[in-house]
Amino acid sequence: MSTIKYPNGSAPQKTTSVRDFHSGRGMNLENDINDSNKFYRESNIALIYKKPTPVQVVRVDYPDRKKAKITEAYYRTPSTTDYNGIYRGKYIDFEAKESANKTSFPLFMVHPHQISHLEKVHMHGGIGFFIIRFKEYGVTYLVDSMVLIKEIKRTEKSSIPYKWFEENGHVIKEGLCPRLAYLKVVDACYFKED
Amino acid sequence: MSTIKYPNGSAPQKTTSVRDFHSGRGMNLENDINDSNKFYRESNIALIYKKPTPVQVVRVDYPDRKKAKITEAYYRTPSTTDYNGIYRGKYIDFEAKESANKTSFPLFMVHPHQISHLEKVHMHGGIGFFIIRFKEYGVTYLVDSMVLIKEIKRTEKSSIPYKWFEENGHVIKEGLCPRLAYLKVVDACYFKED
Repeated sequence: MSTIKYPNGSAPQKTTSVRDFHSGRGMNLENDINDSNKFYRESNIALIYKKPTPVQVVRVDYPDRKKAKITEAYYRTPSTTDYNGIYRGKYIDFEAKESANKTSFPLFMVHPHQISHLEKVHMHGGIGFFIIRFKEYGVTYLVDSMVLIKEIKRTEKSSIPYKWFEENGHVIKEGLCPRLAYLKVVDACYFKED
Repeated sequence: MSTIKYPNGSAPQKTTSVRDFHSGRGMNLENDINDSNKFYRESNIALIYKKPTPVQVVRVDYPDRKKAKITEAYYRTPSTTDYNGIYRGKYIDFEAKESANKTSFPLFMVHPHQISHLEKVHMHGGIGFFIIRFKEYGVTYLVDSMVLIKEIKRTEKSSIPYKWFEENGHVIKEGLCPRLAYLKVVDACYFKED
């Protein structure tokens, strides 16, 4: 990442209202997954939620006695992945990433704590995976967590080619309800015996 | 709950710093459970986390380019319970409550969304329960979610007597590591066949 040099040596103060910037990363994919999870919950197919973004609250005001207004807080680094829940009696845990890159998936997008968390999910007998969207192609893959983590540990490069996902990922069908039928892929990959 | 009438008709503005007031409810029990979960995770016994308190972010400042400072945000009502994860291959989901009441557990402490969430956990084949501490006695019970929910739906009172917990709950042993050995109770209640 490059650093912009400002004339006076520091960046101008910016104020952003309306949208939560951090949770805005990969907003479209996140919205699609949230919508799909809502559909899966309402159809009693699965019970999967996005975890709230962890926030360190420093100061709270009480403009009226019933309403707490947070006036100083900071985003914290999550120690886990973004999504978890239960499907067909099994613990489900995954992370979603949206890549703007055309030819490869940049590895800085996967954080060490996400890798170690998904390794533990696997160890405890849960189902763990990544949902990775390549924006340019409009294609979304589900990749088993251990398969991707193995490749991350094997490669010496800072990204994994798009081709690798074509070979090792599973395309998630997009539609209306659910937007992303990712549990169909989970059925095919993790419930083969049925 | 009573309403205090202030001379000018409105409550004085209060500012609280240091401690997050909302997550401070039942702080001791929460700390004990978080410590226990940390122990269980580090010993590779279970992978259970408290979910972050959901916060609606309205305004974010960037005093410097790398640090986002939230300057206006509000607590949101969680749609699920506080804790979930995986233990012995099973999905685990629970809510913790600390009651200052001596003779009974007040039912306003259990929210409707927690009841419906735990009903769904049960339906999907997960293990769901409540951890309820009676501060006055220094005793902490694990109660199966469906057993407590059945009693909540059955009773016409606004609380459940302490005696009911003695009869239907399971005392959680307290110690050093873990502080609350609640998974021992989970073993006894949900993995009987082993």
